[in-house]
Amino acid sequence: MKIEGQPFRSIWLAEDGWSVEIIDQTQLPHEFRVRALQSCDDAAEAISIMRVRGAPLIGATAAYGVALAMRADASDGALERALAGLLETRPTAVNLRWALSLMKAELGGLAPGQRCAAAYRLAAGICDEDVQTNSRIGEHGLHLLRELSQARQGEQIHILTHCNAGWLATVDWGTALAPIYRAHDEGIALHVWVDETRPRNQGAALTAWELAAHGIPHDLIVDNAGGHLMQKGLVDICITGTDRTARNGDVCNKIGTYLKALAAADNEVPFYVALPGPTIDWEMSDGVAGIPIEEREECEVTEVHGLLQSGETASVRITPEGVSARNFAFDVTPARLVTGLITERGICKASEQGLLSLYPEQGENSDD
Amino acid sequence: MKIEGQPFRSIWLAEDGWSVEIIDQTQLPHEFRVRALQSCDDAAEAISIMRVRGAPLIGATAAYGVALAMRADASDGALERALAGLLETRPTAVNLRWALSLMKAELGGLAPGQRCAAAYRLAAGICDEDVQTNSRIGEHGLHLLRELSQARQGEQIHILTHCNAGWLATVDWGTALAPIYRAHDEGIALHVWVDETRPRNQGAALTAWELAAHGIPHDLIVDNAGGHLMQKGLVDICITGTDRTARNGDVCNKIGTYLKALAAADNEVPFYVALPGPTIDWEMSDGVAGIPIEEREECEVTEVHGLLQSGETASVRITPEGVSARNFAFDVTPARLVTGLITERGICKASEQGLLSLYPEQGENSDD
Repeated sequence: MKIEGQPFRSIWLAEDGWSVEIIDQTQLPHEFRVRALQSCDDAAEAISIMRVRGAPLIGATAAYGVALAMRADASDGALERALAGLLETRPTAVNLRWALSLMKAELGGLAPGQRCAAAYRLAAGICDEDVQTNSRIGEHGLHLLRELSQARQGEQIHILTHCNAGWLATVDWGTALAPIYRAHDEGIALHVWVDETRPRNQGAALTAWELAAHGIPHDLIVDNAGGHLMQKGLVDICITGTDRTARNGDVCNKIGTYLKALAAADNEVPFYVALPGPTIDWEMSDGVAGIPIEEREECEVTEVHGLLQSGETASVRITPEGVSARNFAFDVTPARLVTGLITERGICKASEQGLLSLYPEQGENSDD
Repeated sequence: MKIEGQPFRSIWLAEDGWSVEIIDQTQLPHEFRVRALQSCDDAAEAISIMRVRGAPLIGATAAYGVALAMRADASDGALERALAGLLETRPTAVNLRWALSLMKAELGGLAPGQRCAAAYRLAAGICDEDVQTNSRIGEHGLHLLRELSQARQGEQIHILTHCNAGWLATVDWGTALAPIYRAHDEGIALHVWVDETRPRNQGAALTAWELAAHGIPHDLIVDNAGGHLMQKGLVDICITGTDRTARNGDVCNKIGTYLKALAAADNEVPFYVALPGPTIDWEMSDGVAGIPIEEREECEVTEVHGLLQSGETASVRITPEGVSARNFAFDVTPARLVTGLITERGICKASEQGLLSLYPEQGENSDD
């Protein structure tokens, strides 16, 4: 997507032809800093301290991490060390495992002398495929937004989103934001309500930044506000991303998504979830009952990070000293509250039947 | 309620017998500072910059402000000036008008020489009546909590609350927190989930502080978390306060209350609202359609106030520069989502019929 008119991806090969550049997302929104990754350790650090985040981007960065490792040393031992080191950066990320398995399978069978070039090719392929997947999600979602816009005779439509499922979470386009970028670029008048997304404020820090950089009208709101907006007819559609979609269409996403889906259902606002096929967990038959919810550090709740008037960044504690907090990172929205799933293969109902209509090759499992 | 074992009200007459002391709530939760009000101007400032907040406490402070004015000058002119000055501190607060009207009606008819003593008596009466009202709300709500506790054979019960409807918002006891204090003091094992309550963080700053000071077990959560907790069976009851209750039982309260009520309904968690009779707006027949929602400054959304590691307080900006935000202060929860209203006269259904069963004297209006 664009930053002040200039197209960017979230990760790319530098002009030197071998080092890898990323946007350091730990510095956003207060500073736009491009950072070069010149070793596998650089890539591992970028993932572990969240200079890059979002499942697809983590996978792509890991793939390039292997390529950087192979450039330095293409031996079997170096390959093993690179794969192991990258895997432990974010042990629960599904895309990380997927990308590393792919690299291992492809590179393991090659002679060391062929590995470096192959690794760069594979990493570039993973990136391009992610861009294509998200571009298709954008295309399918665009139809929804176009219809809404036509129904309103071209009047500005209002879209509510939660967290950041934009291009910063992927290589480009994003998932939930892909239809929005498409529609905006096509001249559809739209406006985005950006949920702050406590506790890590990805909405305030990343989504607002992305939309501003691309010139898309938006307003930041606190996570508490969405229900009121929907009740007052100020939201035409909700679109969010997802970290894991169960076989029955239940959707696991950033904490708070479920509350917005409830408000959407109560006010007959369509609620869509955008996802690439690999985030569907075909083994998980009941998302609400089965998906485990990560609990994170208290300090994300009790402290808020931002920019002081002096221009320095700092954290402030918002609670009395010693207050204990609980920090659940995700929640699961039951399929019954989801109007539809926007995938790279089209839009379907949030149900096993709906998903299988787009991914018929997964149908066999249902007889297991 | 108690602070480290010592009973406190939020406002009281100082030992000198004439000046008025308050807890400076702008300093909470990072500092507990008692502040003396020695003039009507002191009282007006305390209200306008929110050293005191919460409708009942604002009314009580205004009444004492008149008393302080009468002590300095009990003339007709001074009385008029005091009333006018206090009225403009928070022009929309219903209790402020009510308290000042009462003072005007009672003092206007007296000779100047009698006004000072009468004003102090009236102000003390307003405070005592508020304490009694809230104590009764606590008593009625206590029955609910006792029943829940018995149903769980004395196992710890979990209560979710939003914003601050505690003793800091009133003279003592609070509204939503009154049943919780009562139950805790009676030895019922309980635990409170404290919603942070963005954007002003009254939950993180005030409710958490109150509960900690009184020794009640609690955990702070982000506003996004309540749906997940209810889905997982981790909430036994929700209790919130309200700023205005419509004749039909619709409840206007801090933004985000509606989302919690939706989650409670979806998970069959009882959702109660605690209120003193004067917050019922008998003229408002449809709360969702009719209650106007205040929109406040953007900076409350884009900036967060707290304590730096250095021990100083500061605000940090959490958004990119120039991002625009919208800040809706309240939302309205439809009566259908409210299990019951806890008033000083008992508990009733959230409906006109329910309210009239407790306040039959308001029945005449329905024929208007």
